Amino acid sequence: MAGEHCFLLLNEDKPREACGVFGIYAPGLDVARLTYYGLYALQHRGQESAGIAVGDGKCITCRKGMGLVSEFFTEEILSRLSGSVAIGHVRYSTAGESTVENAQPLTFHYQQGMISLAHNGNLTNCAELRRELAQSGAVFQTTADSELIVSLIARAGTGDLLEGIMEAMERIRGAYSLVLMTEKRLYGIRDPHGMRPLCLGRLDGGYLLASESCALDTIGAEFIRDVLPGEIVMIDENGITSLKPHQPQKRALCVFEFVYFARPDSVIDGLNVQTARLALGRELARECPLDGDLVIPVPDSGTTAALSYASERGLPFGEGLMKNRYVGRTFIRPSQEMRDLGVRLKLNPVRESLAGKRIIMIDDSIVRGTTSGKIIQMIREAGAKEVHMLVSSPAVTHGCYYGIDTSEKGELIAASHCLEEIREFIGADSLHYLSRKGLLAAMAPIPPDELCDACFSGNYPVDVPCSQA
Amino acid sequence: MAGEHCFLLLNEDKPREACGVFGIYAPGLDVARLTYYGLYALQHRGQESAGIAVGDGKCITCRKGMGLVSEFFTEEILSRLSGSVAIGHVRYSTAGESTVENAQPLTFHYQQGMISLAHNGNLTNCAELRRELAQSGAVFQTTADSELIVSLIARAGTGDLLEGIMEAMERIRGAYSLVLMTEKRLYGIRDPHGMRPLCLGRLDGGYLLASESCALDTIGAEFIRDVLPGEIVMIDENGITSLKPHQPQKRALCVFEFVYFARPDSVIDGLNVQTARLALGRELARECPLDGDLVIPVPDSGTTAALSYASERGLPFGEGLMKNRYVGRTFIRPSQEMRDLGVRLKLNPVRESLAGKRIIMIDDSIVRGTTSGKIIQMIREAGAKEVHMLVSSPAVTHGCYYGIDTSEKGELIAASHCLEEIREFIGADSLHYLSRKGLLAAMAPIPPDELCDACFSGNYPVDVPCSQA
Amino acid sequence: MAGEHCFLLLNEDKPREACGVFGIYAPGLDVARLTYYGLYALQHRGQESAGIAVGDGKCITCRKGMGLVSEFFTEEILSRLSGSVAIGHVRYSTAGESTVENAQPLTFHYQQGMISLAHNGNLTNCAELRRELAQSGAVFQTTADSELIVSLIARAGTGDLLEGIMEAMERIRGAYSLVLMTEKRLYGIRDPHGMRPLCLGRLDGGYLLASESCALDTIGAEFIRDVLPGEIVMIDENGITSLKPHQPQKRALCVFEFVYFARPDSVIDGLNVQTARLALGRELARECPLDGDLVIPVPDSGTTAALSYASERGLPFGEGLMKNRYVGRTFIRPSQEMRDLGVRLKLNPVRESLAGKRIIMIDDSIVRGTTSGKIIQMIREAGAKEVHMLVSSPAVTHGCYYGIDTSEKGELIAASHCLEEIREFIGADSLHYLSRKGLLAAMAPIPPDELCDACFSGNYPVDVPCSQA
Amino acid sequence: MAGEHCFLLLNEDKPREACGVFGIYAPGLDVARLTYYGLYALQHRGQESAGIAVGDGKCITCRKGMGLVSEFFTEEILSRLSGSVAIGHVRYSTAGESTVENAQPLTFHYQQGMISLAHNGNLTNCAELRRELAQSGAVFQTTADSELIVSLIARAGTGDLLEGIMEAMERIRGAYSLVLMTEKRLYGIRDPHGMRPLCLGRLDGGYLLASESCALDTIGAEFIRDVLPGEIVMIDENGITSLKPHQPQKRALCVFEFVYFARPDSVIDGLNVQTARLALGRELARECPLDGDLVIPVPDSGTTAALSYASERGLPFGEGLMKNRYVGRTFIRPSQEMRDLGVRLKLNPVRESLAGKRIIMIDDSIVRGTTSGKIIQMIREAGAKEVHMLVSSPAVTHGCYYGIDTSEKGELIAASHCLEEIREFIGADSLHYLSRKGLLAAMAPIPPDELCDACFSGNYPVDVPCSQA
Repeated sequence: MAGEHCFLLLNEDKPREACGVFGIYAPGLDVARLTYYGLYALQHRGQESAGIAVGDGKCITCRKGMGLVSEFFTEEILSRLSGSVAIGHVRYSTAGESTVENAQPLTFHYQQGMISLAHNGNLTNCAELRRELAQSGAVFQTTADSELIVSLIARAGTGDLLEGIMEAMERIRGAYSLVLMTEKRLYGIRDPHGMRPLCLGRLDGGYLLASESCALDTIGAEFIRDVLPGEIVMIDENGITSLKPHQPQKRALCVFEFVYFARPDSVIDGLNVQTARLALGRELARECPLDGDLVIPVPDSGTTAALSYASERGLPFGEGLMKNRYVGRTFIRPSQEMRDLGVRLKLNPVRESLAGKRIIMIDDSIVRGTTSGKIIQMIREAGAKEVHMLVSSPAVTHGCYYGIDTSEKGELIAASHCLEEIREFIGADSLHYLSRKGLLAAMAPIPPDELCDACFSGNYPVDVPCSQA
Repeated sequence: MAGEHCFLLLNEDKPREACGVFGIYAPGLDVARLTYYGLYALQHRGQESAGIAVGDGKCITCRKGMGLVSEFFTEEILSRLSGSVAIGHVRYSTAGESTVENAQPLTFHYQQGMISLAHNGNLTNCAELRRELAQSGAVFQTTADSELIVSLIARAGTGDLLEGIMEAMERIRGAYSLVLMTEKRLYGIRDPHGMRPLCLGRLDGGYLLASESCALDTIGAEFIRDVLPGEIVMIDENGITSLKPHQPQKRALCVFEFVYFARPDSVIDGLNVQTARLALGRELARECPLDGDLVIPVPDSGTTAALSYASERGLPFGEGLMKNRYVGRTFIRPSQEMRDLGVRLKLNPVRESLAGKRIIMIDDSIVRGTTSGKIIQMIREAGAKEVHMLVSSPAVTHGCYYGIDTSEKGELIAASHCLEEIREFIGADSLHYLSRKGLLAAMAPIPPDELCDACFSGNYPVDVPCSQA
Repeated sequence: MAGEHCFLLLNEDKPREACGVFGIYAPGLDVARLTYYGLYALQHRGQESAGIAVGDGKCITCRKGMGLVSEFFTEEILSRLSGSVAIGHVRYSTAGESTVENAQPLTFHYQQGMISLAHNGNLTNCAELRRELAQSGAVFQTTADSELIVSLIARAGTGDLLEGIMEAMERIRGAYSLVLMTEKRLYGIRDPHGMRPLCLGRLDGGYLLASESCALDTIGAEFIRDVLPGEIVMIDENGITSLKPHQPQKRALCVFEFVYFARPDSVIDGLNVQTARLALGRELARECPLDGDLVIPVPDSGTTAALSYASERGLPFGEGLMKNRYVGRTFIRPSQEMRDLGVRLKLNPVRESLAGKRIIMIDDSIVRGTTSGKIIQMIREAGAKEVHMLVSSPAVTHGCYYGIDTSEKGELIAASHCLEEIREFIGADSLHYLSRKGLLAAMAPIPPDELCDACFSGNYPVDVPCSQA
Repeated sequence: MAGEHCFLLLNEDKPREACGVFGIYAPGLDVARLTYYGLYALQHRGQESAGIAVGDGKCITCRKGMGLVSEFFTEEILSRLSGSVAIGHVRYSTAGESTVENAQPLTFHYQQGMISLAHNGNLTNCAELRRELAQSGAVFQTTADSELIVSLIARAGTGDLLEGIMEAMERIRGAYSLVLMTEKRLYGIRDPHGMRPLCLGRLDGGYLLASESCALDTIGAEFIRDVLPGEIVMIDENGITSLKPHQPQKRALCVFEFVYFARPDSVIDGLNVQTARLALGRELARECPLDGDLVIPVPDSGTTAALSYASERGLPFGEGLMKNRYVGRTFIRPSQEMRDLGVRLKLNPVRESLAGKRIIMIDDSIVRGTTSGKIIQMIREAGAKEVHMLVSSPAVTHGCYYGIDTSEKGELIAASHCLEEIREFIGADSLHYLSRKGLLAAMAPIPPDELCDACFSGNYPVDVPCSQA
């Protein structure tokens, strides 16, 4: 199926999270099946490929394929994955061809046995690392940065895997939340800035790691705490061992997790995502107190902020756009003549709610602006008198190098156009972004200087590759 | 794949619509592809199988398979379906094994050439019809009532298909919205009571038929009007010909289309579904003016009514439950020990929104009550102080014989339990249903006596099979 | 997969058997699995689709698909087919699109329950039957003649299936060996001329029917006897009941079964196929006592006759052409520039055996002559001094209407060209066919007037459709 | 599908060739498609997985999967593989799980770009190499020895691939015929003993490499010569460059290629395989001049020797056993009660040829003896008076460490049983093996000391791993 792409996802004018990771150490439980459900809860973080690796003390068996977790994994596959430790991964490719070779977990034989790794994030010094490793004779199956991490670990260690991990962490730069396993042991690692989330849970005497706490809830596990920036957590028959081998560094948790990526029912570094989004809507109401007849969200990403905006402003909230819930992975592209149907296949305006009204439409972000324009046009055709667009985050002016696919910088409409130009491009009667100040205020209790908002500000907490900055 | 069932769908404690139908006559357009998108918009009416038949003037080619429209149909399949007339069908089986043999459209050779049919609804006199046809030597590939209709048409006609259709309509009883085609002509037929919806549209000089108007919107077609109860619409190179061959009968449009099945952006017999649901919420607010800290819906079916209830009551509305959007068709069943995860795999409470609050939870209906009970338990575990459940329709006390799968009558909790027993069973602090009067009031402008509310009242507008009534 | 064709099979310049049938009544045995192995032994009679239907006393379950028996049927499918009676079918389509809809067994509900049928042969009056049935209102899923038989049976009977079968046999003309089953009973039927083979066997107290005795051998069953021309065999808990309801008619067993189709290890109506082929080679040696350095067969079909020819002539026999054994169903077509590779992909000459020699090459038949020409060219290029072609049957001058696909009459090279023209076309130094007299002599002990040799003689034992004769 | 095994192949009591390799450098030709046909001709060397890698000057694209070449590769896959250089591989796993991860070609990124490799043979010092590479930090995706070769090449080179190859050849021991490519260059390498075959051909200005010359014939290419033991052949826009960097070593071509593996139409190191097999039959006739009524082969492997034996002895040759040609990859295992059908599913005796006769049955080898025993029993049941078994090679007494799967040594019946015991085990009236002298005589013109006959003699030309010798 390589080469088939989901038209609607490609067309979706949103940044894309690259990955979700999950890990479990729980002798006696069906770790593969629990990983399946955990990944299913993290499916929003990547819909392109899914994989599960299981260790039974002697060997690691890994199965991965294209599509949703529930599309690739069958009862037959799952029932053959037995063991006491497992990791899993869902992925949206940020670069390169979309093939099963690039799916994770990546599983290798090394000096001490077997190792399997799942990575959420993006390294910033991979060109340099790759050059160096290749010069000493390393070969790679993929062009992915994740494979470099395994090579570094295998190379660094003089027998002890933990030592290898620590040495590798000295070398790699950028964003990484990792779950890693040997045949019998589970590791969780979060980069020193804590850019991507990773949390720790407990279930029936076993332990779990997950990108988001919603995965713990889904399988009935108990949330313990977030893995700390720079922390290595090792889990085996002796329980949890924590190491913090490195100098503390400036925290820089990705603020876009709260704006768009993470599930509203997750809690990341102490902040519930829905709580944050409700605060974004309230900040927006304070900054842009518009008058209108109806507040509507662009579903689903704008819904939470729209609810609090409407409530704060005392305006009615309505579902002005209905979203089709049944998009499959290989949705057929419309032919040229039907191309303008694009957005309509996914969103349909409810004429009865919109006609004759001054509409305030709220979305979480604008990337290229093309989708926003089509939606506004649909709303006008459905009879709306005015359409004002509010965005519950600042303008995206800079690309992300830490694991988010924000499109090429050249495609970011706000990178090269002023507010008035964007408003005209999308055809709104007015357009307002939340300020950076408002954004950060909504993130309380997380201090502003512990967040990465580089895509809005250009303040990159970790050096980005020269050629790309 | 026959025999694999989607655990979550099975577990979903909701009535199930059996089918959605679509038809198009449009020489010059890519009718197969437009049918694909039309079915995609009707996917909520049936997720088990999908099929498209295309006529090119000489022959009908039909392709159908298990799964979502976007799962079964590939570019390769679609590109081989060319012609000027097409019909399509999505199906959820109400009875019997779930196999591709039972998928529609049903396509046959008969005396005059080829005929293909897609059916939404359920006949009530099929045992009698089947016996009669079999006695005269007919053989059947399926046990479905839809196949009987084709046999009756083929048998009745003395050459003229229209005559065959009219004669068949004299014989069949029950609910049926049909799209039917020959190699070059399209027909739309709605039963004399108009129990299931069917509407007519226009696109670039061609004509369309669809179960719901949202399918017309999705492909950019214009809504013309609903097909009338008892009407036969014939579409070919001479445009639309309408026949009303039978005595007018009492209208009896299924009220559950508005309560739960149809998409909020559809308009059926003049009433927009979202408008109806908002009215249901307002009626509920009038009948049950509860006090509470937060109104939450059971997503997605309770959302619209919950919004208007909260607004009417002046109470805050919130998303207290997050729904996983990524359920595939062959989702793996949890093993016994994980069985109580059931609902949690699909819905996760947002602790931060619920803790310490008196929750008013609104759903559109209760069938068996098992899911409601699990949801309420989750909400309590998330810290809610009280949970009051409101239902935006009356108690479902009777089975449906007109194309809806409401579970066996024995499973309908309200068929054998009083309000207090149900409340106790689901563990709510209080439980309130909308009255039948409130339901019907919300359906204005459709007069109460033009609706079928048999599942709430037992007033069956068409005789049901003796053994089952 | 429809539309994909096996290049090599299409290119194979041979008549094609349409079908093989198998049936078993054996409570207590795994009838589905035994049918699987039985069909596997009959695979040479049809490689396009395969199907198995199983009756468990109450219901018939049928599974069929494209490809070889071992390609379509999996352990999962087989393990779900349980019962005490089963029939199976392998098919090569002689006409129409190659799709799963046309695969057999055909399974229907009729007045008395369910019925399933597998057919080897071809009716000659199907246009007339179809017209008549359609006029009385019958509808058909396929354009296949086999479906007509079921309709006739269902229509004829007034409750008793056997009566229906007898009445249907009065109406149908042409070649048919049928296995038919209800939920609990098995029937075997052979047309009054006995054109296609069908035999009866025994296994562990159960009974079997098969197109060829090799299927009985393969599953370890005992051969009882051939089903007689015009006989109906009914098998149930009372054992075997035989009926011969019709006037005896002239026997006309297809002689091509011995020349090419059937497996050498089968015995048909008392004659072992290998024995017959060895006799063909000996007759050929008597009629055409050529001199040469090496006798080679076109493998595999020419091998047996070549062995006896060489032995009879006292000449060395050798494998001058090696056949690739690994042709899959969807073998990729060579592109235009590689088109002349065609035959070479399947057959490769062994230079060391051929160089400098006068080659006598033996094949069982020539249909279009294109393949023979390419093979002779290859042999010359491999260094052969002379190439003489001998054919162990007469020239194919007439099409078959009884279930064999001999290509269109216009394509039969011997229908419009004399011996010398064919010799020149294929590029042989000399060309000799076996005489009709020699053919029939080799078939002893079957009397010449009990064989159908219409494809060689034009003497059709059953009237063929006017438009085609 | 991992885990499904072909029952018949597993049961086949024969040594198994591990692999076949193919390579082509031919700008302007459709190299992927030619590789497809080349692999198809080599399919007998491995039926478990197939793969093709194509280089277009900038990048290598590789596709591989389980099953036959014609099962995995579709028109869609092939049409996406374009370039000017390609390699391919068919494989039968000699160890480990049968999964797609172990399929070849193996493709890697390394310091200079990309590299892809296909390997036929087996290294004998891989444990040592693996340990050494792992200690310096290498990680491996597989447990296959082939992956070590790539690591060694990548590690050895200081920029020049050729240098890397030469250094790697210094380190590896055992049998290897390799085709290797970069994005734009093709390499062929044969181990210093020339244990496995590899030949060179020409087509339309391009060059080819193949395990056997039959692959060249199949695509219409011209045979140039064999690659020499220890030779490296480099092919690019400058044509062919040959290097022989190492000291000449004793030649040791696998004699089993002639006895069983290779196709009869191939020529290896100057000897045609069919010629060799005919000579084996003649030697057998000289050594064991039995009397009997009929000489029959165990098809297909015994056929050629049986023909020359019969001819030399002046005895009639016949096809006493018919082989089913339609074994698919996932053939369903017989259930326990049908287990003794095993051999019968594949071979069926022709009673008419065998009854009452003294049979001389010839096979190329006996490994475990179980199949031979079942065949002899079948022949007796078919009425044979006597069954004498002749084997056209010596008794297999030693395992192979050079790429052939001869079963565990413990399973080799001749490793632990004398002739009389084996005869009794298989139930033959007499049993005779060809002598080692006869074997080597038949291999003329290849001198005895240039052949490896370790499986017959235990004379291993390359040291084998201590633990296994």
